[in-house]
Amino acid sequence: MLHIDLNSDLGEHYGAWRMGDDERMLEIVTSANVACGFHAGDPKSVLGTLRAAAGSGVAVGAHVAYPDLVGFGRRQMNVTDEELEADVIYQIGALQALARVAGTEVGYVKPHGALYNTIARDERQAAAVIRAMRAVDPELPLVCLAASPLVEQAEAAGLRAVPEAFADRAYEPTGALVSRREEGAVLHDSADVAERMLRLVREGVISARDGSEVKIRAESICVHGDTDGAVQMAADVRSHLLDAGVSLGSFTGAR
Amino acid sequence: MLHIDLNSDLGEHYGAWRMGDDERMLEIVTSANVACGFHAGDPKSVLGTLRAAAGSGVAVGAHVAYPDLVGFGRRQMNVTDEELEADVIYQIGALQALARVAGTEVGYVKPHGALYNTIARDERQAAAVIRAMRAVDPELPLVCLAASPLVEQAEAAGLRAVPEAFADRAYEPTGALVSRREEGAVLHDSADVAERMLRLVREGVISARDGSEVKIRAESICVHGDTDGAVQMAADVRSHLLDAGVSLGSFTGAR
Amino acid sequence: MLHIDLNSDLGEHYGAWRMGDDERMLEIVTSANVACGFHAGDPKSVLGTLRAAAGSGVAVGAHVAYPDLVGFGRRQMNVTDEELEADVIYQIGALQALARVAGTEVGYVKPHGALYNTIARDERQAAAVIRAMRAVDPELPLVCLAASPLVEQAEAAGLRAVPEAFADRAYEPTGALVSRREEGAVLHDSADVAERMLRLVREGVISARDGSEVKIRAESICVHGDTDGAVQMAADVRSHLLDAGVSLGSFTGAR
Amino acid sequence: MLHIDLNSDLGEHYGAWRMGDDERMLEIVTSANVACGFHAGDPKSVLGTLRAAAGSGVAVGAHVAYPDLVGFGRRQMNVTDEELEADVIYQIGALQALARVAGTEVGYVKPHGALYNTIARDERQAAAVIRAMRAVDPELPLVCLAASPLVEQAEAAGLRAVPEAFADRAYEPTGALVSRREEGAVLHDSADVAERMLRLVREGVISARDGSEVKIRAESICVHGDTDGAVQMAADVRSHLLDAGVSLGSFTGAR
Repeated sequence: MLHIDLNSDLGEHYGAWRMGDDERMLEIVTSANVACGFHAGDPKSVLGTLRAAAGSGVAVGAHVAYPDLVGFGRRQMNVTDEELEADVIYQIGALQALARVAGTEVGYVKPHGALYNTIARDERQAAAVIRAMRAVDPELPLVCLAASPLVEQAEAAGLRAVPEAFADRAYEPTGALVSRREEGAVLHDSADVAERMLRLVREGVISARDGSEVKIRAESICVHGDTDGAVQMAADVRSHLLDAGVSLGSFTGAR
Repeated sequence: MLHIDLNSDLGEHYGAWRMGDDERMLEIVTSANVACGFHAGDPKSVLGTLRAAAGSGVAVGAHVAYPDLVGFGRRQMNVTDEELEADVIYQIGALQALARVAGTEVGYVKPHGALYNTIARDERQAAAVIRAMRAVDPELPLVCLAASPLVEQAEAAGLRAVPEAFADRAYEPTGALVSRREEGAVLHDSADVAERMLRLVREGVISARDGSEVKIRAESICVHGDTDGAVQMAADVRSHLLDAGVSLGSFTGAR
Repeated sequence: MLHIDLNSDLGEHYGAWRMGDDERMLEIVTSANVACGFHAGDPKSVLGTLRAAAGSGVAVGAHVAYPDLVGFGRRQMNVTDEELEADVIYQIGALQALARVAGTEVGYVKPHGALYNTIARDERQAAAVIRAMRAVDPELPLVCLAASPLVEQAEAAGLRAVPEAFADRAYEPTGALVSRREEGAVLHDSADVAERMLRLVREGVISARDGSEVKIRAESICVHGDTDGAVQMAADVRSHLLDAGVSLGSFTGAR
Repeated sequence: MLHIDLNSDLGEHYGAWRMGDDERMLEIVTSANVACGFHAGDPKSVLGTLRAAAGSGVAVGAHVAYPDLVGFGRRQMNVTDEELEADVIYQIGALQALARVAGTEVGYVKPHGALYNTIARDERQAAAVIRAMRAVDPELPLVCLAASPLVEQAEAAGLRAVPEAFADRAYEPTGALVSRREEGAVLHDSADVAERMLRLVREGVISARDGSEVKIRAESICVHGDTDGAVQMAADVRSHLLDAGVSLGSFTGAR
C-alpha cells in the first residue's frame, strides 16, 4: 500500500499576532513543524498548538530558524558555526520540554525559511545544524529538500534524512524548485496540485516546468496553511490521496 | 560535619557583551544559576558556561526570568499565568538540551531578578512557576528566599524548596532582606560577611540590622560575581567556611 | 457646531504578522495612533501606514509603549524614570522621521496599553512620559483618559491634555472605566454605542453602569479596528455622529 | 594647515551590559558614531552618551545597523530594500530626537558592522541606505570605506561621501582592507599605526601589506575603544597627529 506524510508549518503565532489556522491544519496533516520562538512562536501559543497536535495524533517536529522575528526567519543570515549549532540545540530543547508537557514529543527537525534554503546548498551551515541534532539526539530525522545535496550530507553524518516535496511549487528539470522570483513558481490550481502529488507518490515523478519528468524521492509532502486558499488546497491534496487509496501517516512512525 | 552550598549567577553574557567572570566563579561556587536567554544568555555563550561548569563539577540550575533583555530581568512584569508557565517550561527545556550537550544536566531552578522577588510574595505568579516546574520534572528543587512564604507554597505543591541566604545583604529582624533602596542594604566588608555566613551555617542565625538575631534555615548561600570586589568576597566566604571545616557541595547531591 | 475627533490604534503589524485593517480605519477616524516599534510596528509597515494616513488626511500620533513585543505592550512593567523617559523620546523620534518621509508629521502622543493605564494613575511614570514629551516638543498634546488625574498632571506641567472617551466601554459612576475583568465591561451593541457617543458630544454625559449620569469632558473618542465587528462599530459611530450634524476632525487642528 | 577627523563607535552599551569606555574616547575623537538600538544602544544609555558628546563638543553620527542585537550587527543579513530603507529612517529619527534632547544633533550617518561592509560592495543595499538618508535629510554626509565603490555611488546620488581609513588595519595594494580572516589584518604597534596615519594625512598614502604604496583619500580616521589597548592606540594616534601640527576636528564643520 502506498504511503506518504503530509507536513505543514504550525505554531507561528506571536503574542497577540495570529498566523495560519492550526486547528484546521491539524485535521489535514500528519506532521506539524512547530515554531520554536526564533522566527515565530511565543511559548504560550506554542504550548497550545502542541496540545492540539497531541490531541489530534499529529507528529511534531522542531521548526528551527534564524533569530529573526521581524523578518519571520526569511532572511539569510551569515551566522557562525558555533552560533548556529547552539541556537539549534536551544530551540530543539525548548520545544522538547513544551512537547512533553503537552503530552507529545519532538519527533524530527525541519529548519525554517531562510535557514532551510541556505542549508540545502551551504555545507558549512548544514554541518552546524547536523552537529546540533546529533548532539541532542542522533535518532532525530532531518526533513530536507528532496534532491538537495543536504540529503546525502545528513545521511553521511549518520542522520536519517527525510526528503520532501512541495505541493504548490513548480520544479526545474534538475529537481530544484523554481525560484519564487520567477513567474509560475507557485501553483494555484488545487486539482492539478493534488494530481501531481498523487503521481509523485505512485511513480516518484513530478513534471517539471518544461514538461520533462523529474524523479523525486519524497517521504513527505509540504502543504501550507497561511491563507484560506492554502488550507483548501491542503485539504484537496489530502482527500485526493486518500481517495486513491494512499495511506497517510507520519514518517516518524510514532503513531 | 557542617555542609552548605554556594550558588551564583552565571552565563549572563549576551552576544558581544560580557557580564561577570564565569571562570573564576566556577572555582568558588558549587551551584551555577545559568541564564536561559530571557534576561541574558545567548545559546552559544551559555553552552560555553555549561561546558565549563561540567568540567569543574559545579551543579547547574535554570535561572529563569521575565522576557526582558534590555531590563536584564530586573523589572517586575504583570504577566499572565499562562504566559509565565509556558515561559518557564520553555527556558528550562532550552537549558536542559544545552546542558546535556555540555555533559551535565539541569539540577534545579532558581528564578532571576524581578521574577525571584515577585514570587517570594505573589502567590499567583509563584503558582505558575511551580506548575511549570512540576510539569517539566517534579523532582527539580526550587531555590527560593529563606523565610519567604514561597518556601511553604512550593513544598505544599510537592516541590522541594531550597531556601537560600544572601551573603552580601543586610536582614530585617523578620528575616526579610533590607530593601536595596535603603542605606546599608548591601554589605561590603568581606571578613564580616564571611563570618556572618559561617555563623549562619553553624547556628542557623544571622544578625539583623537592628542587632537582633534572626533564625534563617538556609541550604545554600548566594554570592555574586559581577564585579572584582564581589568575586573576592565570594572567594573569602568560601575559604572562611572551608577553614572552619564546613564542607561545600551542591544541594542537588548530584556530585 | 458640535465637533469631535475619532482616534484608533493603527500600524500594529509586525513583520509578517498583520493586526487590524488600517485601510478601512483610515476612512473612519480623524486621528491615527501609530505604533512605534516597542509593542508593535516594524519600520517598513509603519511607513506604509503613515503614507496611507498622509494620503487620507488623517492626523498621526505616536503610540508609545513599554518595550514588550511578545506581550503587545499590555503588561505593566516597573521601568525606571530614566528608562521610560528615554524610551518615549526614542519612539517619538523614530516615528517623527518616518512621518516626515511619509509626508505627514507626529501631531500628538498617546501611550499604549499598559503604559496608558499605568500613567492614568501612577504619577511617577506619568511624570517621566511628560518630561520626555516636553523635551522633544512641548507643543505635542497628550491624549489621556478623561477624568483621570493625568489630565491635570499634564496640564500643570505645561502640556496640552486631550481627554478621550472609549466608545465600546462601560463606565463607573466615578468616570473610571469598568475593569475588563468584570462582566459588561465591553459594549457590543453598535447602535447603543453610537447613541452614547452622540450624547457625550452633545451633553458631555455618559450613562454609567448603574444608570447614573457621569460628566465626561472628551475631545476625542477612541474606537477599535482589530476585529470586523469593531470596524463596523467604528463606522456606525462615525455615521451616527455625522448624521446628527457633528463635525469630525482632529484635535490637532493640523488639517 | 593639515586637518583630519577621528571617529569611533560609542553608545554601544545595552541595558546592564557595558561596551567600551565612552568617557575616555570622547577626550580622543572628534566624531562619535552612536548606536541607534538595532545592534546596541538602549535609549537611556544612548542619551547619556549623547549628553557626554554634547558636553565634550564631539560631533555625533547615527551608527545605523541591521536589527541583530545578539549578533551585534556583525552578521550579513539579506534584508529587502523596503525593510532596510525604513529601518535606517527609523534609527536616524530615534537618534535625532535623543540628540536634540541632549543638546546636540545628528551630523552624519555611518553604517555599522556587517551593514557597513555589505554596502561597500552591494549596490542594492547601498541604494536603500542612500534613499533613506536622502529622505530624512539630503545634507547628511555618509561615512564610508575609502576607495570603495560606495563613495561614488553616494556622490552620484547627491550625498556627501566622507571616505575614512582604519588606523589599526592592514591594507591590500588595491586599497581594500586585508580580511580579518588573514594573519596580520589587525595592527597592534601603536607607534607604527600613529606614524602610518600621519603619513596618510600628509601624503594621502598608506603602505600596503606588500610594501607598495596605496593612495587613499580619507577625511576621517576610524579608531577603536573596545579594549584598553585600543583606547591607548587611539590616544597615541591623536597625540602623534597633534604633535606634528595636524589639526583635529569633525568633517561636519558643526563645531
